[in-house]
Amino acid sequence: MKAQRVEMFVCPMDNPHDTSELQRLADEGKLKPDTLVALAGKTEGTGLFDDWGRIWADVALREWTARFLGIGVDKVAERVIFVLSGGCPGVITPHIAAVTREWIDAPERTHGDKRLVVGRAGSEPIAPEEVGRMGMIDKVAEATRQAMADAGLSDPADVHLVMVKVPGLTNASIHDAESRGKTVVTHDLTFGPEGAGVYGNDGAALGVAKALGEVPAGSLSDAVVRRNWDLYSSVAMTSSGGEKRHGEVIVFGNSTTSLSPLRIGHSVTNDFIDAEGVRNALRSAGLKFDGLPSESDLSRLVHVFAKSVIPGSDRVRGQRITLLDDVDAYQIGKALGGMLVASVTGRTTNYVSGGERNSHQGPPGGNIVAAVVRA
Amino acid sequence: MKAQRVEMFVCPMDNPHDTSELQRLADEGKLKPDTLVALAGKTEGTGLFDDWGRIWADVALREWTARFLGIGVDKVAERVIFVLSGGCPGVITPHIAAVTREWIDAPERTHGDKRLVVGRAGSEPIAPEEVGRMGMIDKVAEATRQAMADAGLSDPADVHLVMVKVPGLTNASIHDAESRGKTVVTHDLTFGPEGAGVYGNDGAALGVAKALGEVPAGSLSDAVVRRNWDLYSSVAMTSSGGEKRHGEVIVFGNSTTSLSPLRIGHSVTNDFIDAEGVRNALRSAGLKFDGLPSESDLSRLVHVFAKSVIPGSDRVRGQRITLLDDVDAYQIGKALGGMLVASVTGRTTNYVSGGERNSHQGPPGGNIVAAVVRA
Amino acid sequence: MKAQRVEMFVCPMDNPHDTSELQRLADEGKLKPDTLVALAGKTEGTGLFDDWGRIWADVALREWTARFLGIGVDKVAERVIFVLSGGCPGVITPHIAAVTREWIDAPERTHGDKRLVVGRAGSEPIAPEEVGRMGMIDKVAEATRQAMADAGLSDPADVHLVMVKVPGLTNASIHDAESRGKTVVTHDLTFGPEGAGVYGNDGAALGVAKALGEVPAGSLSDAVVRRNWDLYSSVAMTSSGGEKRHGEVIVFGNSTTSLSPLRIGHSVTNDFIDAEGVRNALRSAGLKFDGLPSESDLSRLVHVFAKSVIPGSDRVRGQRITLLDDVDAYQIGKALGGMLVASVTGRTTNYVSGGERNSHQGPPGGNIVAAVVRA
Amino acid sequence: MKAQRVEMFVCPMDNPHDTSELQRLADEGKLKPDTLVALAGKTEGTGLFDDWGRIWADVALREWTARFLGIGVDKVAERVIFVLSGGCPGVITPHIAAVTREWIDAPERTHGDKRLVVGRAGSEPIAPEEVGRMGMIDKVAEATRQAMADAGLSDPADVHLVMVKVPGLTNASIHDAESRGKTVVTHDLTFGPEGAGVYGNDGAALGVAKALGEVPAGSLSDAVVRRNWDLYSSVAMTSSGGEKRHGEVIVFGNSTTSLSPLRIGHSVTNDFIDAEGVRNALRSAGLKFDGLPSESDLSRLVHVFAKSVIPGSDRVRGQRITLLDDVDAYQIGKALGGMLVASVTGRTTNYVSGGERNSHQGPPGGNIVAAVVRA
Repeated sequence: MKAQRVEMFVCPMDNPHDTSELQRLADEGKLKPDTLVALAGKTEGTGLFDDWGRIWADVALREWTARFLGIGVDKVAERVIFVLSGGCPGVITPHIAAVTREWIDAPERTHGDKRLVVGRAGSEPIAPEEVGRMGMIDKVAEATRQAMADAGLSDPADVHLVMVKVPGLTNASIHDAESRGKTVVTHDLTFGPEGAGVYGNDGAALGVAKALGEVPAGSLSDAVVRRNWDLYSSVAMTSSGGEKRHGEVIVFGNSTTSLSPLRIGHSVTNDFIDAEGVRNALRSAGLKFDGLPSESDLSRLVHVFAKSVIPGSDRVRGQRITLLDDVDAYQIGKALGGMLVASVTGRTTNYVSGGERNSHQGPPGGNIVAAVVRA
Repeated sequence: MKAQRVEMFVCPMDNPHDTSELQRLADEGKLKPDTLVALAGKTEGTGLFDDWGRIWADVALREWTARFLGIGVDKVAERVIFVLSGGCPGVITPHIAAVTREWIDAPERTHGDKRLVVGRAGSEPIAPEEVGRMGMIDKVAEATRQAMADAGLSDPADVHLVMVKVPGLTNASIHDAESRGKTVVTHDLTFGPEGAGVYGNDGAALGVAKALGEVPAGSLSDAVVRRNWDLYSSVAMTSSGGEKRHGEVIVFGNSTTSLSPLRIGHSVTNDFIDAEGVRNALRSAGLKFDGLPSESDLSRLVHVFAKSVIPGSDRVRGQRITLLDDVDAYQIGKALGGMLVASVTGRTTNYVSGGERNSHQGPPGGNIVAAVVRA
Repeated sequence: MKAQRVEMFVCPMDNPHDTSELQRLADEGKLKPDTLVALAGKTEGTGLFDDWGRIWADVALREWTARFLGIGVDKVAERVIFVLSGGCPGVITPHIAAVTREWIDAPERTHGDKRLVVGRAGSEPIAPEEVGRMGMIDKVAEATRQAMADAGLSDPADVHLVMVKVPGLTNASIHDAESRGKTVVTHDLTFGPEGAGVYGNDGAALGVAKALGEVPAGSLSDAVVRRNWDLYSSVAMTSSGGEKRHGEVIVFGNSTTSLSPLRIGHSVTNDFIDAEGVRNALRSAGLKFDGLPSESDLSRLVHVFAKSVIPGSDRVRGQRITLLDDVDAYQIGKALGGMLVASVTGRTTNYVSGGERNSHQGPPGGNIVAAVVRA
Repeated sequence: MKAQRVEMFVCPMDNPHDTSELQRLADEGKLKPDTLVALAGKTEGTGLFDDWGRIWADVALREWTARFLGIGVDKVAERVIFVLSGGCPGVITPHIAAVTREWIDAPERTHGDKRLVVGRAGSEPIAPEEVGRMGMIDKVAEATRQAMADAGLSDPADVHLVMVKVPGLTNASIHDAESRGKTVVTHDLTFGPEGAGVYGNDGAALGVAKALGEVPAGSLSDAVVRRNWDLYSSVAMTSSGGEKRHGEVIVFGNSTTSLSPLRIGHSVTNDFIDAEGVRNALRSAGLKFDGLPSESDLSRLVHVFAKSVIPGSDRVRGQRITLLDDVDAYQIGKALGGMLVASVTGRTTNYVSGGERNSHQGPPGGNIVAAVVRA
């Protein structure tokens, strides 16, 4: 019988094209061409539309991976999933987390504690007219189910993080849809509140929610996307980009069959200043503490993945904030999430993405936090 | 014998000229013309040089105070100290804290617990050539001693917060100095690292440090200002502005003679993500808790005053951050401090100022936090 | 017979609440309570959603006008139209242009040259569900016709500038509409490409275009708003704000019956760098020059009103620009229009509004320019 | 006898690492490894300190050049001068201008019209304590004289553009200087008014001014740098960066010995909205027109190089502007220069750098413009 052994290596990057830590891991044999399954990280720069830091990092990491795997750059996407979130405002260290998965011949495990597994799947092609609508939701849901199967997971309760990348809209894809007599969900190509970016993200999030049964059967329709915020996933972290034609899903969960030294957990924050939500994610992953985690607890913490979506309301615990009217809200919103997490983890190498306003990723006003610990 | 009774009322503001909460307190008799001694708060807007939100609030609050006191607007500054810090990025609620001081005939207190007192003083006029130099340091130190005396404090250990406003530089005042054959510390009128704004702030902070004995006698000279960061105050929160000719100082401390229902304490953060430093300020003020403060503890918390100066280094606990290169660092830096405090206090009505890089207010990389609690 | 005599006074403002130039004109008798019909200008600040400079100027100008007219502030809007465009990035001097209209007993004019007239009208109330749709278009069209009649104009060719203010959308008005079973054109409250701000602006612009016959009869429908850019007005400058319930229209044109010393003209720029379009507006108003206007020509120029809407395409005369991807595009776009006009007029006191992307105000990629000259 | 034949090719870039136009020119034989002498251009991105667009372009262009020349990347700087100015706000097309110089055996020219020549030189190493002081001024002056000699120019009146790159300051180089007991001109590493960036730029500009006799002998000293704005060059465009240890100078001028098909000229703008200054540069280069250049004139225009330094005063032609207080002044200032030039040239592929406040590059309030035309 084959069992998974999953590892995660968090590599700080000194500039957008710094692959030295990855190379060091490769030289040490910790990364191998046939075990590397995902690279997820934060790239330095503004995180805005014309953030060349993210784009340069993407190019540099794909070129490094192609060399490492001995394949063409155009083949890299078939082997390794890239999730690069741009923008490290505040106290977020630019870094890349490398995820490896080894299949080990092993006797069936007898003890019951669950350990980290990962699974991946690609979705059917998603047409422009499906972005942010049921078409996308259904296809992402199906891919999520396949990725769970790839991970060896069947119970949604064992799933703690689902990272998804889906196509967004572009002028070209809108034109394509409309020339075929179809409509698209929006003509706004930004990440603003009616932008294609957030419709793509949120369609994907609801797809995960559907697959995992996080929303009532029958509650989903085109009309609820970015309208009914009571429908959400607590484990989906999604991003969308115009350049892709199908979705990519990577599922992180725990399984008794795993031989990994790691375990994952998750929780949500209930509002924008809810540090206890971050601590609950650490507890969910297996750290046991009242009040605050100890140094010893934190030494077992491998990585945190968190969203920092801006609330739709200008009230936090009853008091007004002005964030929604701030021209820099996108970056400040992301920076605030970075601080909330860092103030708990005691470190700045955390994966925190976000900045957009409102989302089906996490509850209204709150956000998702997942944590990976050494078991 | 007369004893002080000091109160503090935290009033959220719905817009820059919202004085409705102050008026309500006045109508209820909680504010009286002869007891109002200070208005300190955060005004909404960008906090940048051309932030009309702060300027409008300043005009509106002075006009309200003039009406309330029945005096001319030009006389308001003689009666009430205004400390308005502009910019509420992120999770900082625009608000004004009104401080009142009543002198009550009272028998000498016999029990020993210390309670809040305040004292005020104006400095000698500070010439442009003294800004950010020993001239300012000495005059602020003298005014700090006078304000301590006004507060009835003699032991520096009883002082927990000293708010200071001093003159900055303007094109006109630089011209004035140079026409008299004097030099000025800088020609940069910004709050950049060599700007007049930070030289003024830091001269004032070292003046407080001198008065309180926080720095070794003989360690101060023109040459150490914004050069030797090991010299700093742990209780000085200072601001500078070109329109003033002398400094204003308000000292907050605790005294056994006080009849106040409040007590103040302070601590410092040791780096930019040090939430424990914020908790230590609450403990210093008298909240007793291990780990995290309880709801009951927080219900006794009246207000927090904190700085959020950006570190001079691009490392936090050994990892690189990119904040120093960020064009929005001033606002993000302030926002991060707001989050750090709010994540501990569980509320967004906190006074958090800052954004500049490096300061003699607090230790290198860290910041000052003061807390007022109901005793 | 009564004839109009219209004057326009351009008053620089030294800060958002500077009404000193208006007061000076009033003291000199150039402004009179019964002749003041409009105040149109540029206020300093960012021009963004939370620009307190504009809001403070609005409050201060209305208070001044109320005192000047001897009426309550709440009655000011019935007597004087305010058009305050926020944001003076670059080379735009904050200023207010006061427009006066006197009715003079006069024999019928016999010579034929046309002079400036103005007319005003309010629209029927515009419901939230009508914003950016035919409801708004029709009501603005009707108000434009009434304002033309008030100005004594019947030929659309005599109309050179129509300034319009209409209601936008707010969370409250959207809720109102939806609670009555209506839909609204967008849920995005920003000035982004699918924002309520631009839908309001563009509904109003098409209303003017309809009234003046600038678009083919039957070409208008809900579906063309912000979709078919070939439909546009060459004289409409519109703005929208959530606080209003009906539209306000002020029409500027020329008439042989006028006794004004001024004349107005207009033209459009064909792309974002088309200085000749600005010069053509000056020519349209009556300045006669080949090539460049002379100093003598410019001494007769009273004021220029221009839009600076960002093009929808990233190509200018075949070459790529990156403005559309720039996070500061709103302010830079406005600043660029200010430079284009100032480089022609030789002064910085020009009214230039804009910054949004694409509009039915002016041709695709180009903008409207109107000029008032001393005849 | 050998005569120069200089050509200039303006290549739009579609992204920061787009070298396709350069490659096309190479494939067509227009660029040859032994004739390429300089690449000067504008790179897309913010132009700010952390602008990865500029850095990526720099890496990509050097890698391309190394391949083209068949040498190592570390040898490229010895062969080709790179002048990459970051930031294309507004209407500036990202582009690179390739300059080639061929030495042709030719009989002595008899006719007298002057044509384009270029010359290059490196300076002596410039120590950190010399940055922005006489040490830098003298070394840049000497290198300018050498570059003139390399160009075959002896009369400063024939020099129309001198592009210079010099070392700036870094934390490391400041530490180096101070550890040797030296002082540095500033500790501010920004491009603010007292920043190392502008001190470096302005030291270099005064070096050019000294070499060309643009300032009175004996007028230069450490004390005048960024203090006496009446001392300036009308042809120096300079930049500074911490990574270099010596200066690089490239001189563009006209000579009767040249066999080039091009000619260069220059002028200055007298204030920030002076379009006539731009037109004068075109005239200086040999385009003959009153008023406005014709289409035919513009078809002969090869390229314009312009600075857009923000004025030190808040008045333009007597009216106040708010640019100096604008947080985006750096980018808006650059964008405005781009518009001023584009409104004259009728194209967006212009080299416009700047954004800093005040400079010895050009007269107070004005800027330098150089133009290259096909003779």
